[in-house]
Amino acid sequence: MVTPGGTIRMAGIGTAAPGPPIDNATLGKRMGMGPMWEQWVESFIGTKFRHLAVDLATGEQRHTLADLGEAAGRRALAAAGLDPSDVDLMVMGTAMPDKLMPTTLNEIADRLGIDGVPTFQLQSGCSGAVQALEVACHMLSAGAHRTALVLGGDVSAKLVDPDMDAGALPPAQLVNLVLFGDGAGAVVLTTEDGPGPLVRGVFTRLTGRNKAPGQTLDWFGGNRRFSGPPVTEDYKAIEAAVPVMAVSSLAEVLRRTGWGHSEVSFVLPPQLSGRMTAKIVAALGVPNAVEVSCVEETGNNGNALVYFQLERLLPRMAPGDRAVGVAIESSKWIESGFALEQR
Amino acid sequence: MVTPGGTIRMAGIGTAAPGPPIDNATLGKRMGMGPMWEQWVESFIGTKFRHLAVDLATGEQRHTLADLGEAAGRRALAAAGLDPSDVDLMVMGTAMPDKLMPTTLNEIADRLGIDGVPTFQLQSGCSGAVQALEVACHMLSAGAHRTALVLGGDVSAKLVDPDMDAGALPPAQLVNLVLFGDGAGAVVLTTEDGPGPLVRGVFTRLTGRNKAPGQTLDWFGGNRRFSGPPVTEDYKAIEAAVPVMAVSSLAEVLRRTGWGHSEVSFVLPPQLSGRMTAKIVAALGVPNAVEVSCVEETGNNGNALVYFQLERLLPRMAPGDRAVGVAIESSKWIESGFALEQR
Repeated sequence: MVTPGGTIRMAGIGTAAPGPPIDNATLGKRMGMGPMWEQWVESFIGTKFRHLAVDLATGEQRHTLADLGEAAGRRALAAAGLDPSDVDLMVMGTAMPDKLMPTTLNEIADRLGIDGVPTFQLQSGCSGAVQALEVACHMLSAGAHRTALVLGGDVSAKLVDPDMDAGALPPAQLVNLVLFGDGAGAVVLTTEDGPGPLVRGVFTRLTGRNKAPGQTLDWFGGNRRFSGPPVTEDYKAIEAAVPVMAVSSLAEVLRRTGWGHSEVSFVLPPQLSGRMTAKIVAALGVPNAVEVSCVEETGNNGNALVYFQLERLLPRMAPGDRAVGVAIESSKWIESGFALEQR
Repeated sequence: MVTPGGTIRMAGIGTAAPGPPIDNATLGKRMGMGPMWEQWVESFIGTKFRHLAVDLATGEQRHTLADLGEAAGRRALAAAGLDPSDVDLMVMGTAMPDKLMPTTLNEIADRLGIDGVPTFQLQSGCSGAVQALEVACHMLSAGAHRTALVLGGDVSAKLVDPDMDAGALPPAQLVNLVLFGDGAGAVVLTTEDGPGPLVRGVFTRLTGRNKAPGQTLDWFGGNRRFSGPPVTEDYKAIEAAVPVMAVSSLAEVLRRTGWGHSEVSFVLPPQLSGRMTAKIVAALGVPNAVEVSCVEETGNNGNALVYFQLERLLPRMAPGDRAVGVAIESSKWIESGFALEQR
């Protein structure tokens, strides 16, 4: 756990979502579903919109993760009033990089004109933004770096077949099409003084021992013997475990900051789906906290989610406000959280 | 750059290579090549053996990266005289994880019985071992962790098609079959006192601005519109750039440690192939250094290479000895290096 003692500041935030928001009616039409399905999605999943890198009509990929990460990175730097040359560390989390090598982060660095610095791309799921924040905060705390550009995002274009017959898919795969969204985000962290909340703590911890994965994402190369569904989920396990893990993560952040549940001004809960998020917020027990969520508008865009929440949070924080974010990785069950305080 | 001031110790090393060593005659026979080809490989590539996770005769995958990483991790912990419960941080580098999610590192953690700690899997190429060391050293330096298990490895089973007609492959793809090997390695780093050399420094830096990738690895999921060669290389660019980058990396390590070229007792050079390594060592200009290489026996196993070199190095270090390792990622051109000193 980093408790940087007020030395790490979140100086800027930026996000990028591909294309226009796609509502459930449009998605349902493409999938051959009727109006009943649309109501079912609104009631039982609670996601209203998502952005997709693939054009629904043609199946063409219009945006890469590097495109989105580059745009988010530019916005975060502009919001921080900094130039690419001020960045001396880059960390990114993604589950679905454009390629395996070179890393998408290094492609983004090239486009932004950042060079000569260490860059670390984490392979990560829904806690990836917090994992990236944790690596960056520790490296800044260690004293060798001053300003980090931290990114995260996911683009599902390689996983979802635009030529699929959606009507023939089993429900477990159909629900992914409703849940998933594409996007990227970035924050600037710096040890230099200026406006923006301070990072009061960030932690992640694997809790997957002796537990089957809640979700798997597979990849294939040139070996034709490997094939199969690239995505599998155990939604029952996810639905049972994530609220409990979120409560545990919140408790860990509060334990480390010394804050009480009633002292949290804003809470950024896990964003699996609109419905799951509402259930989790009810369980967290932070009576004075304003919820900051995005999933109804963005879909579950994985490693980007926390950045979309932070973009909604930062302009609302007043002096003395305390915000706690919680993210859960349900692939191998990672708990994570972070704390921000506006001076 | 971490200059931990003598506080981070390399307490144990372990490696794991799948199956028996495969010589060029055996590989050439499988590929339909004659004895001339074998001589050509020895002369122009200089790799004599490699280990492969796929059984050459049947094409079956016998070992996963998690299998190899687990074995290497156990060996490193045993060498350090530590238990899995002593580990409070895990970092791993790989270009070719078993799946995208869950991470191979988290699978390894589960098998080793390590839980409740942060785990970071870097997407990385031939500098991945140094990148993982850098993240671990900074996090240990920041003071919140004491003992890190750092791993790296690659298994090419998904990239290479065992049912291929090798005779029909273009030379640029054939050469990969000769260069590649599979394997994993692990080291234990700790801030606790005990035997083993101290980490005097570790650095990585991207130098890829405005440069085309020297190598690409692609992945495919369920979208059937994505296909193509999973691996591409620009060997001319790699052959031209890597020696220059290795010289630059060595200079950076020496600048940061304050050591002179003649004070280096052991040098661990980049391990693209036996021939390239010999060329690089000649360029490094470390007259009193003993070369520690492995590629002739292991093949280029990517993120595992540095660990195989460290396994050869550590038993040979006497009090006062100084070792410098250099690794180069030629996908987006990362320079990296580290320094060890035996007390």
